[in-house]
Amino acid sequence: MTDYTPNADLDLVLERTVPVAPARVWAAWTEPELLLQWFTPAPWKTVSCDLDLRPGGSCNVTMESPEGEQFPNPGCYLQVEPERLLVFTSAMTEGFRPTVPGDDPTAFPFTARIELTPTGDGGTRYRAVAMHADRDGCRRHGEMGFQEGWGAALDQLVALMS
Amino acid sequence: MTDYTPNADLDLVLERTVPVAPARVWAAWTEPELLLQWFTPAPWKTVSCDLDLRPGGSCNVTMESPEGEQFPNPGCYLQVEPERLLVFTSAMTEGFRPTVPGDDPTAFPFTARIELTPTGDGGTRYRAVAMHADRDGCRRHGEMGFQEGWGAALDQLVALMS
Repeated sequence: MTDYTPNADLDLVLERTVPVAPARVWAAWTEPELLLQWFTPAPWKTVSCDLDLRPGGSCNVTMESPEGEQFPNPGCYLQVEPERLLVFTSAMTEGFRPTVPGDDPTAFPFTARIELTPTGDGGTRYRAVAMHADRDGCRRHGEMGFQEGWGAALDQLVALMS
Repeated sequence: MTDYTPNADLDLVLERTVPVAPARVWAAWTEPELLLQWFTPAPWKTVSCDLDLRPGGSCNVTMESPEGEQFPNPGCYLQVEPERLLVFTSAMTEGFRPTVPGDDPTAFPFTARIELTPTGDGGTRYRAVAMHADRDGCRRHGEMGFQEGWGAALDQLVALMS
């Protein structure tokens, strides 16, 4: 399942072992009422999510800044292997429709792989990979705080589910 | 399987009944040595293809103009349901990696659905849908000759496989 080898120039990777079973990590990622509680590092909030958990299904999450501004993040699921692998992208919307190219020149479309492997003692080896189109997008996502942001969200997931 | 309802503003549709069984239409679309023979309306040619038939696998086809200029078309498979449904996109490359946004401002990323339904008398109800990000991309693909091009290619498929 985790046979993907990240590309050092184009991918960002967060890898950790967490004391939460794969089934519960999966639930946190796929059940809206759970995802709302951990997905966005405080003081940001996740205010709504519309998850249609199948390849081609919509994966739309709206975040809200501390100032109350809302940021919709439309996306689409690509692969759904329960408790093992979840792949989704910001480069498409429902039904695999490509998103408008160049709509926002500062945007960097990415595809995310959430890979879960049981550790044998009830925990999960957790790897999140964000795959970008080019080095510039990868760099900007890194500078925006990928490691810190996705890491803080994972801490919230662990606090919620363990 | 063909439960997708095209969007009149964003999608182009070619729908025909052909006297070729779904299994043979599927073979023509998925076996490189067959695809090379019908995929590009003459006098253009398909000169190479690299097909990794699985979700996330590459779907790269290179065409050649009558003047000998080569045009690579990198893509990625999204759904593979043998003899029923093949979905691929130009908006991603191998492993679902998004393509570089705005690399070519005249490009219009699209996702294609090839839907096959048995007719009951050994033929196939064939529907090809090209889904675009926006109206402009859809219009440009139409003006470029989607109906004529995909129709002429289908004629070549039928001539080859029937």
